[in-house]
Amino acid sequence: MSKPYVRLDKDQAAVLLVDHQAGLLSLVRDIDPDKFKNNVLALADLAKYFKLPTILTTSFENGPNGPLVPELKETFPEAPYIARPGQINAWDNEDFLQAVKATGKKQLIIAGVVTEVCVAFPALSALAEGYDVFVVTDASGTFNEVTRDAAWRRMEQAGAQMMSWFGVACELHRDWRNDIEGLGALFSNHIPDYRNLITSYTALTSGK
Amino acid sequence: MSKPYVRLDKDQAAVLLVDHQAGLLSLVRDIDPDKFKNNVLALADLAKYFKLPTILTTSFENGPNGPLVPELKETFPEAPYIARPGQINAWDNEDFLQAVKATGKKQLIIAGVVTEVCVAFPALSALAEGYDVFVVTDASGTFNEVTRDAAWRRMEQAGAQMMSWFGVACELHRDWRNDIEGLGALFSNHIPDYRNLITSYTALTSGK
Amino acid sequence: MSKPYVRLDKDQAAVLLVDHQAGLLSLVRDIDPDKFKNNVLALADLAKYFKLPTILTTSFENGPNGPLVPELKETFPEAPYIARPGQINAWDNEDFLQAVKATGKKQLIIAGVVTEVCVAFPALSALAEGYDVFVVTDASGTFNEVTRDAAWRRMEQAGAQMMSWFGVACELHRDWRNDIEGLGALFSNHIPDYRNLITSYTALTSGK
Amino acid sequence: MSKPYVRLDKDQAAVLLVDHQAGLLSLVRDIDPDKFKNNVLALADLAKYFKLPTILTTSFENGPNGPLVPELKETFPEAPYIARPGQINAWDNEDFLQAVKATGKKQLIIAGVVTEVCVAFPALSALAEGYDVFVVTDASGTFNEVTRDAAWRRMEQAGAQMMSWFGVACELHRDWRNDIEGLGALFSNHIPDYRNLITSYTALTSGK
Amino acid sequence: MSKPYVRLDKDQAAVLLVDHQAGLLSLVRDIDPDKFKNNVLALADLAKYFKLPTILTTSFENGPNGPLVPELKETFPEAPYIARPGQINAWDNEDFLQAVKATGKKQLIIAGVVTEVCVAFPALSALAEGYDVFVVTDASGTFNEVTRDAAWRRMEQAGAQMMSWFGVACELHRDWRNDIEGLGALFSNHIPDYRNLITSYTALTSGK
Amino acid sequence: MSKPYVRLDKDQAAVLLVDHQAGLLSLVRDIDPDKFKNNVLALADLAKYFKLPTILTTSFENGPNGPLVPELKETFPEAPYIARPGQINAWDNEDFLQAVKATGKKQLIIAGVVTEVCVAFPALSALAEGYDVFVVTDASGTFNEVTRDAAWRRMEQAGAQMMSWFGVACELHRDWRNDIEGLGALFSNHIPDYRNLITSYTALTSGK
Amino acid sequence: MSKPYVRLDKDQAAVLLVDHQAGLLSLVRDIDPDKFKNNVLALADLAKYFKLPTILTTSFENGPNGPLVPELKETFPEAPYIARPGQINAWDNEDFLQAVKATGKKQLIIAGVVTEVCVAFPALSALAEGYDVFVVTDASGTFNEVTRDAAWRRMEQAGAQMMSWFGVACELHRDWRNDIEGLGALFSNHIPDYRNLITSYTALTSGK
Amino acid sequence: MSKPYVRLDKDQAAVLLVDHQAGLLSLVRDIDPDKFKNNVLALADLAKYFKLPTILTTSFENGPNGPLVPELKETFPEAPYIARPGQINAWDNEDFLQAVKATGKKQLIIAGVVTEVCVAFPALSALAEGYDVFVVTDASGTFNEVTRDAAWRRMEQAGAQMMSWFGVACELHRDWRNDIEGLGALFSNHIPDYRNLITSYTALTSGK
Repeated sequence: MSKPYVRLDKDQAAVLLVDHQAGLLSLVRDIDPDKFKNNVLALADLAKYFKLPTILTTSFENGPNGPLVPELKETFPEAPYIARPGQINAWDNEDFLQAVKATGKKQLIIAGVVTEVCVAFPALSALAEGYDVFVVTDASGTFNEVTRDAAWRRMEQAGAQMMSWFGVACELHRDWRNDIEGLGALFSNHIPDYRNLITSYTALTSGK
Repeated sequence: MSKPYVRLDKDQAAVLLVDHQAGLLSLVRDIDPDKFKNNVLALADLAKYFKLPTILTTSFENGPNGPLVPELKETFPEAPYIARPGQINAWDNEDFLQAVKATGKKQLIIAGVVTEVCVAFPALSALAEGYDVFVVTDASGTFNEVTRDAAWRRMEQAGAQMMSWFGVACELHRDWRNDIEGLGALFSNHIPDYRNLITSYTALTSGK
Repeated sequence: MSKPYVRLDKDQAAVLLVDHQAGLLSLVRDIDPDKFKNNVLALADLAKYFKLPTILTTSFENGPNGPLVPELKETFPEAPYIARPGQINAWDNEDFLQAVKATGKKQLIIAGVVTEVCVAFPALSALAEGYDVFVVTDASGTFNEVTRDAAWRRMEQAGAQMMSWFGVACELHRDWRNDIEGLGALFSNHIPDYRNLITSYTALTSGK
Repeated sequence: MSKPYVRLDKDQAAVLLVDHQAGLLSLVRDIDPDKFKNNVLALADLAKYFKLPTILTTSFENGPNGPLVPELKETFPEAPYIARPGQINAWDNEDFLQAVKATGKKQLIIAGVVTEVCVAFPALSALAEGYDVFVVTDASGTFNEVTRDAAWRRMEQAGAQMMSWFGVACELHRDWRNDIEGLGALFSNHIPDYRNLITSYTALTSGK
Repeated sequence: MSKPYVRLDKDQAAVLLVDHQAGLLSLVRDIDPDKFKNNVLALADLAKYFKLPTILTTSFENGPNGPLVPELKETFPEAPYIARPGQINAWDNEDFLQAVKATGKKQLIIAGVVTEVCVAFPALSALAEGYDVFVVTDASGTFNEVTRDAAWRRMEQAGAQMMSWFGVACELHRDWRNDIEGLGALFSNHIPDYRNLITSYTALTSGK
Repeated sequence: MSKPYVRLDKDQAAVLLVDHQAGLLSLVRDIDPDKFKNNVLALADLAKYFKLPTILTTSFENGPNGPLVPELKETFPEAPYIARPGQINAWDNEDFLQAVKATGKKQLIIAGVVTEVCVAFPALSALAEGYDVFVVTDASGTFNEVTRDAAWRRMEQAGAQMMSWFGVACELHRDWRNDIEGLGALFSNHIPDYRNLITSYTALTSGK
Repeated sequence: MSKPYVRLDKDQAAVLLVDHQAGLLSLVRDIDPDKFKNNVLALADLAKYFKLPTILTTSFENGPNGPLVPELKETFPEAPYIARPGQINAWDNEDFLQAVKATGKKQLIIAGVVTEVCVAFPALSALAEGYDVFVVTDASGTFNEVTRDAAWRRMEQAGAQMMSWFGVACELHRDWRNDIEGLGALFSNHIPDYRNLITSYTALTSGK
Repeated sequence: MSKPYVRLDKDQAAVLLVDHQAGLLSLVRDIDPDKFKNNVLALADLAKYFKLPTILTTSFENGPNGPLVPELKETFPEAPYIARPGQINAWDNEDFLQAVKATGKKQLIIAGVVTEVCVAFPALSALAEGYDVFVVTDASGTFNEVTRDAAWRRMEQAGAQMMSWFGVACELHRDWRNDIEGLGALFSNHIPDYRNLITSYTALTSGK
């Protein structure tokens, strides 16, 4: 009776980045800002690396919520970009919904700010329509650990799978031999400890 | 086999505020008192803002448990107010039960003190009778994180949805365009970081 | 499809106190010792107060595990006391099993040391045989928060209900009017904040 | 509708140790390194003690990930040792899969680094093929508590049972009388508090 | 050789509020925003209550740092308000320095954002010129606990006294009989637990 | 240039218990209430055990602050008991000051609620008058760790020595042979881990 | 008798970066690696920005300690670089000492790995020779919070000033008007919250 | 006016290990037991490695406090071993004092259980007699962080230097070239992260 394993597949997956806006980010206090910035950019980099269709959306970006974080816009210059005029749940926005459907993918990788609203609402809506939903927990942020925990439980209860960006990357890649350098670069750029391993390894072996 | 998404709907929802009493609040140690006070008042303000039928109840308010927090009484002067003569589970009190039924709503938003008793007992009873139950985790308090965690698990196991007051407000509102100023005021009054965003935004744009 | 609410009933419930032994207690590090001692004694006091059949059991009490905490023996001088000769899962001990069956109760309230073994094993066994199991989380202890969390999840997955001693007491009592003084004394003896409320209340009202 | 209790049985169980490599261990930050080292070696010792078929596997051990921790290799000199050429999910490696099948066991005890990848991926794959999976949470490590929590939830949702090495040892042993000295030595070597109990006990009784 | 006790005296003390600006507040992560807002307003209220000369200052308030929190401006409409054109250490600004000197006070109560710069720099400068400096720790904020701790140590080393706003209020007031209602109102407005005590007390005694 | 070691001496020391009142205790949130109650009673028991002159004092005990915790009054029925009419710093109360002087002791052991006011103010005043001051940190409580830390630093800077009740007891007792049973009983009553050691020891040796 | 305020002066200060090596960084566990990497690079950037003489040194860089983090070498291609052949305290290395003296500066800004050795030893030695020492606490790392705290206390006791990289930058810069863009860029690159403020500000004002 | 740097010197230093007894260790809760065991054994190993005169002492080792941890006795079979008949402060025991004086050393490295008594008392006494005292903080343990912090402050105030065992080893060794293998082995045996560095390094270089 347990939930069956739905495995991320780079040919089946799309990425939804919801409301990573300069103003809203000041609300995020369940994760350190240096770490959070790194995680969000890591997710963006992996989406690009795996050539996953990616959709950007914002809420009221001309008001206090502020503009989309510029790095995201720069990473996906061609991506559908839906500046929602008011819908809080991105799924309620027809353009967004069409953009999701246009990807033709059934696996949705979602991250955003704040977790219990901008992530949870579209996640729950997508699950209700039969999509497989993968929440990138460490690229999503909210007010504090209590609201995060509540949000996770609600999504989990509805069938969402909780992931980290590192887990997403590894599950999509399947085998290092598909591209050792590419995956290595992704990890080196976003995991200081891994970069250190590579630095030491290279120093010792490059002299051979 | 996952739990389907039941979405909060302002025409379907009622709010139950259980035992937020001056004495009992001294038992709450899983959340900082400044933050907890703010969350409880935020929940009250949103209930009023969305005109949700709201029911107040207390346990032994003339004894050591102390009177209902005055701000709640003041916010809902017309609300059903059931001072229970002894029932620990508010659902066991016939007046309370009738007040709930009289709302005609199937979605119950519950918060109270302490979480594993005053919230969990009526939540479990309501679920057993087919209501959809939404627990406002950050407007509910208990002795410590261990008792909170146990309480959440029991309610979740029975089908309750874990929420924050912010998530409740956003899910009820659906679209900023329904009333930008109203929702903005709610957030500005209860989320200091959001108020700061508005302050900075207003300062920069008011001079235009 | 959620788990239905099984409500504790003082006519249906028995208490199993498993391996609260002087030596084993030194292993408990997921809860402060002052608090843990208080919680265990509170559970014992409530079991006695509600006249619940209570079973004591120990593991190797003549060896390093040490004797049962004396206060428990003193609180239940007549209770079945099974010093297990070797079975780690108390449920594997025929005497213990018979003692449980002899109570004729279907609701088992379990606490012990350490959580993932002495509590979880009999809890899982009892669930497998159709009992309703209520784990008193704050009167159970283990090595650290990680092992506790794993233990809770395993038991929860199998259908156990996670409780606190305070929740157990309140769910059994149902209505303060059944005995205001008795329940008040239980709380006053084991909840310093509640005792303070009573102290202040009494000081102000006794002079009338 | 809850998950039935599948009890570890030393005749049914095999152990999979995945990617405990010198380089990868520098990524583990959800547990203190002294404690983690002890837990991993405790799991190895118990696997050997119970004569459970054990499989070792590594990922890219000649690169930055580094070699298998030497103590594991030394503890299991005869064990199947699969140095995977690239597959991230060990289950995708045919040799590993055959080694698992060759054990003829249906209960898989899994630990590794990092939890959400090296543990979770084979755990989910094994569950999908009908194995019973027991995750040794405290002998598995990852980047931080958030990624750990997400990983646990995903595995739990799919039916994995969360354990500690101590819980695994106790459930396998069943009864102290099967070998008091053997189990006592295991605990004494890996639980300082338990060793202290034995030290004090021995000092007091050896003089008799 | 210890530092002698310099006691706050309402006739000797002035308050310096440094850079509590809407933008800069988003940098503060060593204290919860609900709590921090409350503490800052409590300090403002007590400064007004004790009629202490108060000086407001900001850094680049027309840029990203944002405007002064409006409540502070409203509380002290007549106070010297120095919008510094560039000096990071307020003490380097001649207008600020003159405003401090104009108060004629030797005891300076300082709070601000961020602690190691906007508080520490003028605190150290004032100490160097012979002022007695009292840092209101809980109305000052910074990036994280590490930077806070370093800042405290540097100021302490130079002779600053570390206080809380509550301690400041109590030391200034000296005796409740100077104005029971006034001090009670200050506490009731900013300490939820104290308000609850008053609520319960009033309910029990008002009926006499 | 370091502070010389002033060693507690039972013939030189007096104990000041300041404002451990039922209402004020609800403000204490830097220590768990079960633990705090135990520590305060342990300090009281040791003061009685060593026959140290002890002074009790309260602030506004007929108002919201509430009465002195009854156990303290009961432990010291003959002790000077100064219900201060308004002075916040107990040292400002002439009766309290006379009571201190009447003890003829130069070493003052102080504990109270809240740390930065009721403990720190008299501690600083006493230091200023040449007394040696020993603060019992774990029998004193305040709003949170930040206010506690600030209070400790201020007192330390002025020369106070920071202690625990256990350290006080040990330094006063000097040698177990002065009274093994007496000190053992004190520890057994207030340190659960120590009681467990005694329980196990007694079980093993009593049978000889 | 307090320590006088020694203010950082960009004409008086030099920077010592000690043992930020790829291998040694795996020992650092008192700070998150994403945050630590950012802090170290921020310190490097500010040293370059203020044109402070900077000295790099390593310990056994061809062994397990690993090479210097490449970014540091790249930032200071011309800086003295002392690969110490064995001295643990860099101050014991004559080349290092000469490099320090050659700067002609009296204010030494020190950071390194690990705090209690590579930072504390040269810091203590420099203090003993009359230098003013400023420890960049958040660009230094060690095994855990306990060893960090001990290291800080030892250095503080000897007269070192505890700083953060942000405090160092601000104290050196003195006045924003010296170069608004330069300092703003430094903050924008290393403080995500500050970058967000600039992003929002620019979006709102660039359209004017 | 700061404390001058007293540098540990292997020809000047002696080690005092106070009351690391099997029973007393159950009181230690400010550090994880796996980590604490490792730290204590690391300190013992370094004392032996540097051939520092070492003194062992215990308190009531035939009673509940239990025997000295066997590993310490085994490491120092020839060391003075003073089983104190009752003195709580080891310095009060004439045999202990003579053993200290007999070493002829002026630098005392002290660790023990519990920190505020068994460590602090002899540390304060030794300081009073002019010894230089170095407290090995991570090889000393006590009830909780609050009592630890108080103990550290008291010792620091009196002039003790706070160290870690790693800092002690490094300061004593001075230069890796004195014995690379010896120091490397010490670190490899007690720092898992360092062992991993060596493992990876050796694997990569041994094949050359």
